[in-house]
Amino acid sequence: MKICRFNHNRIGVVVGDTVIDITSAFDLNPAWPLPPGDWLARQLLDLPKMRAAVSKSSSRLALHEVSLASPIANPGKIIGAPINYRAHIDEANADSEINNGTTYTNIDEFGLFLKAGSSLIGPSETVMPRFSERRTDHEVELAVIIGKEASFVKKDRAFEHILGFTIGLDMTVRGKEFPSFRKSPDTYTVLGPWLVTFDEIPSPDALELRLSVNGIEKQRANTSQLIFSVARLIEYASSFYTLFPGDIIMTGTPQGVGPVQPGDTIDVQIEAIGELSISVGRAAS
Amino acid sequence: MKICRFNHNRIGVVVGDTVIDITSAFDLNPAWPLPPGDWLARQLLDLPKMRAAVSKSSSRLALHEVSLASPIANPGKIIGAPINYRAHIDEANADSEINNGTTYTNIDEFGLFLKAGSSLIGPSETVMPRFSERRTDHEVELAVIIGKEASFVKKDRAFEHILGFTIGLDMTVRGKEFPSFRKSPDTYTVLGPWLVTFDEIPSPDALELRLSVNGIEKQRANTSQLIFSVARLIEYASSFYTLFPGDIIMTGTPQGVGPVQPGDTIDVQIEAIGELSISVGRAAS
Repeated sequence: MKICRFNHNRIGVVVGDTVIDITSAFDLNPAWPLPPGDWLARQLLDLPKMRAAVSKSSSRLALHEVSLASPIANPGKIIGAPINYRAHIDEANADSEINNGTTYTNIDEFGLFLKAGSSLIGPSETVMPRFSERRTDHEVELAVIIGKEASFVKKDRAFEHILGFTIGLDMTVRGKEFPSFRKSPDTYTVLGPWLVTFDEIPSPDALELRLSVNGIEKQRANTSQLIFSVARLIEYASSFYTLFPGDIIMTGTPQGVGPVQPGDTIDVQIEAIGELSISVGRAAS
Repeated sequence: MKICRFNHNRIGVVVGDTVIDITSAFDLNPAWPLPPGDWLARQLLDLPKMRAAVSKSSSRLALHEVSLASPIANPGKIIGAPINYRAHIDEANADSEINNGTTYTNIDEFGLFLKAGSSLIGPSETVMPRFSERRTDHEVELAVIIGKEASFVKKDRAFEHILGFTIGLDMTVRGKEFPSFRKSPDTYTVLGPWLVTFDEIPSPDALELRLSVNGIEKQRANTSQLIFSVARLIEYASSFYTLFPGDIIMTGTPQGVGPVQPGDTIDVQIEAIGELSISVGRAAS
């Protein structure tokens, strides 16, 4: 099932070129103080309930007429994997603007990083470079959406904790500072166009991903090349902290990262998920 | 005004040894999707409204009988400053278990880091070391609570964006990984015992702070020794991303950091705010 958030506060299921509005199936009145994680993600594991809502719904819209937001509105954590494709480690170690004097080795020498929740946008918005005088790069990534609380979860039970997958763009200011700083400006995390539930992805470890800028292909890889697989990332992350429904794990970017400029259009595709197109605006400073 | 969150979902004002319940003065029904930041923090800037609620309230409790939670329930971002006291930079560079081969220089070579929201607890809870075989350190810090949206704010206007201050404990696993990973296990961020509104702090840049473990003083400093002052931290953070009400800036820890053990009691005091005592439990793994 492809679940989207559209026209700001509606929840829909995408079937072909149509969005079926199933907003009324959900409790959208969070209690304060909010429990950890995303309020809605806790309700999205119930596929039979959503299927029933689809058959009952009389509200159908054309997909091209709706505005799509990040499928998860308020993730508790947006987690990133820094160096998870061999060919990206090689390009990072070869480019001083990427490595700034660091030699990248293994992911568990560096751990995972966090991106600010305030950096999150959806496909109908615009990536706004924060600094005109610093390089901002595109990084396409498979994004995992957690569905069930996970703490000290072993690899072979990891998939039980997944709600689904979406496309992630981990926009990055190059420089010496911690990734959690350089990757957190407003609009630097793009998720969308929708989340595809776990049951519809044959294997998260064999998905082709592609990114092009202004029609020219820049990144192309397969999640089979991930150093820490999706299951291992869940094991690793959950050994440090509890994962909650709606938490996002960005699984890392493959080779081909590079700078974007105002006016660019970034197109991204991930097999079995879909495609997302977003434009780059003028720098804020 | 000292504002606390107590008995899980009540909001109170602390006057001497008494907590005055003013929960009914607030809108505690967040709308989904949630706006960025903390739902309640947006409502806490209105001091006249809170004073009126105090005089109307007939519910008064003894402070020692309530259980205190983090004064902010759902901060959008918990931001940390890594090396912001000269004497702490010196001790970090002298201790290989702290520096792991890095030479610490200036804060703006490293930037700020993020701590996971899921790491947050209040004074009535317990710090639970995540790993029995790795060192977990105490770090006391003045914590700034943002009250108004701030993006590209200059130093001389920074104070207008502050809601108040609280005591912060930035618990830290030592090791090579990114700070945003090592500082984010569950229970590794303690805030409390209450927030003191900006008007009651004579100068955030001249507050004495102290931390002791089992009654033995370990850390003692004054925020006058901060390398990036509170105002400069707001300027710096807001140059990278927008700060929202309820966002927390942990201003950095002074010298004297060191490991804690199961059964330890950590006592912290910050001038003009108050004191907080929390115990350390047995490691989760």
